[in-house]
Amino acid sequence: MMIALLTDFGTKDYFVGAMKGVIFSINERANVVDITHEIPPQDISAAGFTLRACYKNFPPKTIFVAVVDPGVGSARRAILVETESYYFVAPDNGLLSLVFDREKNFVVYELANEKYFAENVSRTFHGRDIFAPVAAHLSKGVAPNECGTKIENFIRLKNSKPEKISEKIITAEIIHIDRFGNLITNLTKNDLPENFTLEIGGRAISRLQNFFAEADTGELFLIAGSAGFLEVAAFQASAKEILRLEVGAKIRLTAN
Amino acid sequence: MMIALLTDFGTKDYFVGAMKGVIFSINERANVVDITHEIPPQDISAAGFTLRACYKNFPPKTIFVAVVDPGVGSARRAILVETESYYFVAPDNGLLSLVFDREKNFVVYELANEKYFAENVSRTFHGRDIFAPVAAHLSKGVAPNECGTKIENFIRLKNSKPEKISEKIITAEIIHIDRFGNLITNLTKNDLPENFTLEIGGRAISRLQNFFAEADTGELFLIAGSAGFLEVAAFQASAKEILRLEVGAKIRLTAN
Amino acid sequence: MMIALLTDFGTKDYFVGAMKGVIFSINERANVVDITHEIPPQDISAAGFTLRACYKNFPPKTIFVAVVDPGVGSARRAILVETESYYFVAPDNGLLSLVFDREKNFVVYELANEKYFAENVSRTFHGRDIFAPVAAHLSKGVAPNECGTKIENFIRLKNSKPEKISEKIITAEIIHIDRFGNLITNLTKNDLPENFTLEIGGRAISRLQNFFAEADTGELFLIAGSAGFLEVAAFQASAKEILRLEVGAKIRLTAN
Repeated sequence: MMIALLTDFGTKDYFVGAMKGVIFSINERANVVDITHEIPPQDISAAGFTLRACYKNFPPKTIFVAVVDPGVGSARRAILVETESYYFVAPDNGLLSLVFDREKNFVVYELANEKYFAENVSRTFHGRDIFAPVAAHLSKGVAPNECGTKIENFIRLKNSKPEKISEKIITAEIIHIDRFGNLITNLTKNDLPENFTLEIGGRAISRLQNFFAEADTGELFLIAGSAGFLEVAAFQASAKEILRLEVGAKIRLTAN
Repeated sequence: MMIALLTDFGTKDYFVGAMKGVIFSINERANVVDITHEIPPQDISAAGFTLRACYKNFPPKTIFVAVVDPGVGSARRAILVETESYYFVAPDNGLLSLVFDREKNFVVYELANEKYFAENVSRTFHGRDIFAPVAAHLSKGVAPNECGTKIENFIRLKNSKPEKISEKIITAEIIHIDRFGNLITNLTKNDLPENFTLEIGGRAISRLQNFFAEADTGELFLIAGSAGFLEVAAFQASAKEILRLEVGAKIRLTAN
Repeated sequence: MMIALLTDFGTKDYFVGAMKGVIFSINERANVVDITHEIPPQDISAAGFTLRACYKNFPPKTIFVAVVDPGVGSARRAILVETESYYFVAPDNGLLSLVFDREKNFVVYELANEKYFAENVSRTFHGRDIFAPVAAHLSKGVAPNECGTKIENFIRLKNSKPEKISEKIITAEIIHIDRFGNLITNLTKNDLPENFTLEIGGRAISRLQNFFAEADTGELFLIAGSAGFLEVAAFQASAKEILRLEVGAKIRLTAN
């Protein structure tokens, strides 16, 4: 079975190597795949967005190990989520909120069975000592309910959604910025009236494009992005650099 | 069969995870290898150089997925190239020009059979929706000619070559700069007379070294690099930082 | 068998792709894992620290390929180290000193049998031409003593250790800084008296914490890190940025 890793551990330290070593020590035949280790340090929300954007591309039974964990070692719990098709192990800090929103049926277990943890669990690196070994044991066929007990009071963050403030006006925001400088909004194509003005960072955009190369170099436009959201983009240029905005920047969408 | 990935998608977003998920969903036994995802955004020429420098190290039948794709979603075609030993899937934008230069016999197919694409093809992410699924199907034994029809008018860029401007003088240029700050030229060892002066960035170099540690720290010299080209290098220092040059910088080589 | 890679080659060039291609060309069934390729260029000491911090997490018989190699092409030797559980191939430049310190029984071979090298060995890229092919042949069952002859005079660096300068005072230093800005010292928990003052960068710390989230945001504290050393850390902040220190910075620990 496949084990897909998503962390904020970076790739310059020994952290990811240690997690992989632990997994292979338990199941040398595991198929371990990196989604990313470059989540900005301790950015739970970026981790959730990134996981949501790609987990459904993976084959059924994939085990996702998602570790962005500022509360490591404290009373925060570790959880295992079983959906119809997938398993997720993660700290109980809201990282999986977007998965909860997207899945109809799922069960959450608190990871409590120390039999599947490392022999000595550190208080600073549960990626290596709890999440990796549990994932490796799952990949060998251990049943989720052997790992712990069902809980209902797991943490679920309220995800930012666009707000309709009048018949013709919706406010929204930037929820992610990708490598190319595209600004991913929390708007979807369904939010968009035929004729619109989208105000962002002091600029107005009123064109929805089908693909990038349709625009002139450096021109700002709106595009239906591959993660399922509308994105503010610029052809062969970075919308982020043009607008100098960060995640959380506000958007105002007006129907004309 | 092995699938080797080379893109400009970076490693901080969900892009690479999505491509891998798609591949494993089609062929869970695929052996997926990252060459790099750190090609500078939209730099087709850097992608071509990097692929050329290592593809022959891979075993026969390796499928290379090379995606640097500023024209994604436009009329630009997607292609599959079959050489004597390898397969390449890529956008038809010249990325594979150095492969064409190096291979004697090859066939180019336009990827047209939607049977091997994702069910819904986005107009912004063909890495996930076209190139990854086609590669996965190839790895399962689908024949190249099932993926599309042969074409002859694919895009082939003229690669920069050194120019002999007199009996004793050749002009050349920097075609790549690596992590260590070594400046890779388009000159090969055969271009080099026994006694020479190479002018670059206001400096003159007249020594060819066999290996790095032969020089004094910070000294500039010429070395036959591992990609098959002459490189301007400095021992335990960055030639790039010393000379403050970029790709495209001009070189003048004079026989003494 | 598993082959784990640790280099300073970065991930933006063809270097890592070339090494993997070579390995798979020799043993297509090899299980190749990246520890990191982001060791700072030519930083032998950082490579040694990183390898030491995670190699014991890997399953027995893992072959580690560790290449930080400023002397490539010179007279420096290439070595293979066989310990009770693992194999290491690396340049003979002290990179493996911390492994030597930690292992009781080990044998060092000079890599000399060209049968297991690339056909043409460059003088600038032994990662591709010597270390990768030797590792691949080992993974296929070639015996260590077929690769070369035992040597005793390999290079072993003296690792920095804390120094007791009086009954109550120990001097120590920062040996590594991780992605989160935690400063890893060469002190272990055993060095720490019950009541202490640790002076570093003009600040005094007298609290040992069990986990990160115990502190106030930005507060400096000491913590027993996951690599086995005491670390100077700050909750949801970077101790490195607060103290503006580099590797090698001095520490003074006083018993109160």
